[in-house]
Amino acid sequence: MYYKEINNEKNIFKNTFEEKIPLMIKGPTGCGKSRFVEKMAKELNLEIIQVACNEETSAVDLQGRYIIQSGNTVWQDGPATTAVKNGCILYLDEISEAKEDVIVVIHPLADHRRELYLDKKNEKIKAHNNFMLVASYNPEYQNKIKDLKTSTKQRFITLQFNYPPENIESEIIHCETGINKNIAEKLSRYAKKLRNLQNLDLLETVSTRLLINTAKLIKSGIDIKTSYITGIIQVLTDDQETQISLKDIMNLII
Amino acid sequence: MYYKEINNEKNIFKNTFEEKIPLMIKGPTGCGKSRFVEKMAKELNLEIIQVACNEETSAVDLQGRYIIQSGNTVWQDGPATTAVKNGCILYLDEISEAKEDVIVVIHPLADHRRELYLDKKNEKIKAHNNFMLVASYNPEYQNKIKDLKTSTKQRFITLQFNYPPENIESEIIHCETGINKNIAEKLSRYAKKLRNLQNLDLLETVSTRLLINTAKLIKSGIDIKTSYITGIIQVLTDDQETQISLKDIMNLII
Amino acid sequence: MYYKEINNEKNIFKNTFEEKIPLMIKGPTGCGKSRFVEKMAKELNLEIIQVACNEETSAVDLQGRYIIQSGNTVWQDGPATTAVKNGCILYLDEISEAKEDVIVVIHPLADHRRELYLDKKNEKIKAHNNFMLVASYNPEYQNKIKDLKTSTKQRFITLQFNYPPENIESEIIHCETGINKNIAEKLSRYAKKLRNLQNLDLLETVSTRLLINTAKLIKSGIDIKTSYITGIIQVLTDDQETQISLKDIMNLII
Amino acid sequence: MYYKEINNEKNIFKNTFEEKIPLMIKGPTGCGKSRFVEKMAKELNLEIIQVACNEETSAVDLQGRYIIQSGNTVWQDGPATTAVKNGCILYLDEISEAKEDVIVVIHPLADHRRELYLDKKNEKIKAHNNFMLVASYNPEYQNKIKDLKTSTKQRFITLQFNYPPENIESEIIHCETGINKNIAEKLSRYAKKLRNLQNLDLLETVSTRLLINTAKLIKSGIDIKTSYITGIIQVLTDDQETQISLKDIMNLII
Amino acid sequence: MYYKEINNEKNIFKNTFEEKIPLMIKGPTGCGKSRFVEKMAKELNLEIIQVACNEETSAVDLQGRYIIQSGNTVWQDGPATTAVKNGCILYLDEISEAKEDVIVVIHPLADHRRELYLDKKNEKIKAHNNFMLVASYNPEYQNKIKDLKTSTKQRFITLQFNYPPENIESEIIHCETGINKNIAEKLSRYAKKLRNLQNLDLLETVSTRLLINTAKLIKSGIDIKTSYITGIIQVLTDDQETQISLKDIMNLII
Amino acid sequence: MYYKEINNEKNIFKNTFEEKIPLMIKGPTGCGKSRFVEKMAKELNLEIIQVACNEETSAVDLQGRYIIQSGNTVWQDGPATTAVKNGCILYLDEISEAKEDVIVVIHPLADHRRELYLDKKNEKIKAHNNFMLVASYNPEYQNKIKDLKTSTKQRFITLQFNYPPENIESEIIHCETGINKNIAEKLSRYAKKLRNLQNLDLLETVSTRLLINTAKLIKSGIDIKTSYITGIIQVLTDDQETQISLKDIMNLII
Repeated sequence: MYYKEINNEKNIFKNTFEEKIPLMIKGPTGCGKSRFVEKMAKELNLEIIQVACNEETSAVDLQGRYIIQSGNTVWQDGPATTAVKNGCILYLDEISEAKEDVIVVIHPLADHRRELYLDKKNEKIKAHNNFMLVASYNPEYQNKIKDLKTSTKQRFITLQFNYPPENIESEIIHCETGINKNIAEKLSRYAKKLRNLQNLDLLETVSTRLLINTAKLIKSGIDIKTSYITGIIQVLTDDQETQISLKDIMNLII
Repeated sequence: MYYKEINNEKNIFKNTFEEKIPLMIKGPTGCGKSRFVEKMAKELNLEIIQVACNEETSAVDLQGRYIIQSGNTVWQDGPATTAVKNGCILYLDEISEAKEDVIVVIHPLADHRRELYLDKKNEKIKAHNNFMLVASYNPEYQNKIKDLKTSTKQRFITLQFNYPPENIESEIIHCETGINKNIAEKLSRYAKKLRNLQNLDLLETVSTRLLINTAKLIKSGIDIKTSYITGIIQVLTDDQETQISLKDIMNLII
Repeated sequence: MYYKEINNEKNIFKNTFEEKIPLMIKGPTGCGKSRFVEKMAKELNLEIIQVACNEETSAVDLQGRYIIQSGNTVWQDGPATTAVKNGCILYLDEISEAKEDVIVVIHPLADHRRELYLDKKNEKIKAHNNFMLVASYNPEYQNKIKDLKTSTKQRFITLQFNYPPENIESEIIHCETGINKNIAEKLSRYAKKLRNLQNLDLLETVSTRLLINTAKLIKSGIDIKTSYITGIIQVLTDDQETQISLKDIMNLII
Repeated sequence: MYYKEINNEKNIFKNTFEEKIPLMIKGPTGCGKSRFVEKMAKELNLEIIQVACNEETSAVDLQGRYIIQSGNTVWQDGPATTAVKNGCILYLDEISEAKEDVIVVIHPLADHRRELYLDKKNEKIKAHNNFMLVASYNPEYQNKIKDLKTSTKQRFITLQFNYPPENIESEIIHCETGINKNIAEKLSRYAKKLRNLQNLDLLETVSTRLLINTAKLIKSGIDIKTSYITGIIQVLTDDQETQISLKDIMNLII
Repeated sequence: MYYKEINNEKNIFKNTFEEKIPLMIKGPTGCGKSRFVEKMAKELNLEIIQVACNEETSAVDLQGRYIIQSGNTVWQDGPATTAVKNGCILYLDEISEAKEDVIVVIHPLADHRRELYLDKKNEKIKAHNNFMLVASYNPEYQNKIKDLKTSTKQRFITLQFNYPPENIESEIIHCETGINKNIAEKLSRYAKKLRNLQNLDLLETVSTRLLINTAKLIKSGIDIKTSYITGIIQVLTDDQETQISLKDIMNLII
Repeated sequence: MYYKEINNEKNIFKNTFEEKIPLMIKGPTGCGKSRFVEKMAKELNLEIIQVACNEETSAVDLQGRYIIQSGNTVWQDGPATTAVKNGCILYLDEISEAKEDVIVVIHPLADHRRELYLDKKNEKIKAHNNFMLVASYNPEYQNKIKDLKTSTKQRFITLQFNYPPENIESEIIHCETGINKNIAEKLSRYAKKLRNLQNLDLLETVSTRLLINTAKLIKSGIDIKTSYITGIIQVLTDDQETQISLKDIMNLII
């Protein structure tokens, strides 16, 4: 698995793991947060249990629940319970989207107690020595109504991610997809240009993920322009005029 | 099954299928998005499992659920699970309408993992080699409160559809309904006129589907004017004055 | 059963039935939409299954559900399932009031597929040859927040109903209630006057149904004035001043 | 049971019962709507089944439901079902408060069909010959968001109630409580004065029910002033200044 | 149990009990409403069943419900049912907070019917001769959205409570806690001063309950200033400046 | 366990425990409220049962519930029930976040009754002699919509906490983490500076907890600047400009 370190983030991850402090990773869409966690899990030889948080994610979804199996009630561990028991990394992706009641799970896991309380079973579980809590959120959504509570945020060491610098990003594209370096470089140059555009009102900026998808499309035989258009431009905006601007920039680069 | 390619969309579909990238199709109501997916499914010899998303559609509706059958609890696969297991196209129509928690299903299926997590069963299923995720939405609804998350959108290659050009649309009407070409041409000319009207505040614009319905009505023996009125005009607006304008334009054409 | 055709609506109903296109009937309260559907069902020799849609009506209410009977789980067909299986008219009255998830039922029934998907049973049912989907809504409610989706509306041929002309309405009152023609004529004249009043802010206008109720009251022996007042005026408004105006107009006519 | 007819309302009730038209009674709080229905039920020798509607009242509350009794599922008729089967008066008090889905029950009962559809049992029940639907609402709440749908209102003959004239009201107080006529007259005079006050912003006006409670308190030995204050004034307002005004008027009368 | 009558409220309670009229007690937080009801229950030798109403309190919470016990369904009486059967005082504290559907319980209990309808059991229970309905609310919350319906309020005789006069309040503090009279007098003088302050924007005013807590703290050995601060000042406000003002006034008195 | 008393809070805790008055602790995030309660529990030799309240916390979560175990219904005590029975400290952290219906649990426990009512079991439990109710909230959230009811607040003696003075805070950091005193002093000096900054719009201020996390990171070998940045600065703000200001201040101190 390919991962390019940018800012000493590996050591911080390892030390917070050793110190048993939970880790928050914040950064924009598709900049490699999840890949970084996967990479570190591999290096630390830990299993990773990932939860894609959303506005329906509640404490129960993390803890587990009783289900009925052939007439008997059986407790089924949720992802947090499994992670706590087996000493895995519990990775709560986009944690700020989850319901507020997940703090019932997070708070006792994220301070000196390091325990999980299962109210349904009236049971406390001390976290395995290797258990680590990692979470992520996108600060660009931060000005929305829903935000993490201060008392939650201040339990975490916080790493800030961003899109990689142009030369590193093109290397990532090249290594991930096998596309030739020239095309990869142009893709990351195009991305850089778009990220610097302030006057276009793009709701979203181009992610590394998007560039990789586009590179794959090119490599599969679709012509470059169509690949840019369907892989980047039509993904980023529905507005006709903005699409024309993005195509103009594309024509300057390819 | 009749399908008229317009813009090289077939190749893009095939290559994203080969590259295992999910595909998003955006475009207005009744412009042929679903027909295109049905056509491609046929050409690729894949079964298609279609879900009409709406504001009640949740992760559970896609994953499946336990039901009680003659006293026993039986797991019943949902459409996503069936598609993932059997290697079908999972087509999520109007995906932006669904509940946010469907990302629990979509995200792990739409990146390098290509797996479906069934939290109710605590089970991960690797997608069949032929599994493909296709989704659609209508960008005209885009300025509403509900929108797809950036982190969802940027997982897809995006095809943009629109109503077909006049000559192709009349050919579609003719082939679909068997109506004579002259009537078909007038219908598509009428549609083009209406789509260009900016000053009428139609909440919706005329779709190809509407023209086909009208053509069928004419062919069944209803007179042309009544067919236009009940098949197009009274569908498009409840406002008396707008109806009069639409009838005036009709009278100029038929 | 008495039904007076006004505008060739019978033929349109029959041809959309033959062409297997779903039919929408729009019009104000109590103008005879339901009666028309009942009439056509009789003429086509079809059973009619009517659902009074409201803001609690969901897909499940149309599809059916599992119920527990003496310990066993039994599937119970909902109205849509019964109609699809037996080839009945499914009449969804005031469809715009229903929950959005009814499109899961309506969309596959209202295009070339003509099939009902029961997600609870993971079963698809092809509609009986005689199955027909009919729906109604009141365009006067149209400017409210809740509106039918464009992608739903454009699947239907649309008939527009209104209150019958004065002479036809009086004939309807006479035939329905047996009241003498003079009283019936005055009732429909009164209705016409009220419907043309713009300066009174009646939330609702007088329906044919109201006139029939009033005629029945008169025939039962209640004096004419009291019948007008309790059958029409106190139904239409709670405002004292408006009631006085409506009584003044009444005194001019009776 | 004491009931004083005011405006020929008994005949209207009887004739709508005979004609099988549903009856709506509108009027302010505590003016005797419920007593009137009780009186008529007695005269017509019908049982009355009363439902105090509120914002939680749904169709199921009227139809009935399956309950589990010693392991078996048993259907339990709701008030509407009982009334329809046994030929009772179903009296829906403050019907405008109920959930919208009660129209599923009301509409088919309130037109020529006169049938109750139990969707849970997939069963239609024709109403007993003696079944009558009576409903009430308070028009003073009418300008609130929640209002009856036009298509519901126009199914009913509507009686408008108000507080009785002064002399009748004092007679009612006297007969109900046994208080001497002089005190009863003063109470109804006081009520009349309060009802005519426009400049005091009382959220509610004094009802006949309030006067009867006050008369009972006086008769039980509490002094007149205290009875007025606790029986009327402190019920009507929490505002100190308004209470002083109401006491001033009281002092002028007693 | 110590209770100091202020305004003839005991007789009114007794007579409404005798006359079987429900009683409403309104007044600010901690002024002794609940103590009064407890006192009267003792004097009338009745058991009191108290329900602390809140926005989740519904009819079912008062009526009771079916629960499953060792496989059998058992009906469990709620507080209203128990009170009605055994002839207790049902005391609904802060009734205006409860859900609207509690009127299903209250209305038939609060007029001449005096019966409780258990819809879940389809059973009517006539209230025991000694049953009495008492409710309370805080008029200072009255200008909020949620308010009792007029048709509910007008079923009750209404007692208005307030904080006791200074001399009585100090006597209450002394008798309740055993603190010496001088300290008790200062506490009630302090309370009076605070209650008269209009320019401080305290969200809440000091209650008798607060004074009793503070007196207990002093008696336990905490110094007077700290007791005032933790028992009164820090309870009343979080604002630093307001706290300083309240301390200034404290310093003038102690 | 290390705890540094600041303001005589230990005695107040002990005396309210002795006097059986509930205790409220208010103060900002991470200032040591929970640690104080843990400390006192140890000194009083009491077990502590802590509930992290959130907007999903309801009365049932505190009382307990029936669960089904191998076919039998078993009652499972909730945290409040366990605390009441065994004489523990029930610590409701951030109580103002909980649902309003928790007052059903709190009110009878927080006045002279000291009893817990389990409505599901229709059972009253007198609190153990050692039972104590402690709650906390953050007054900085106070200006939000959700606030504790006055009738709840006024049942508690209220302790106000704040961040410790600079010298005490550095001592805490040193003792907790073993970091050398110089680094600890700089951390608390930095915190003091940040807390006094009014012109930066930090949504949250730096807590003692944050300083301890940072000290641990330094001690684990991460360089001081990176530790400040990931342990404090990136936790406090997502804004680039504010981060620069916070780094400038950091550079002045370390």
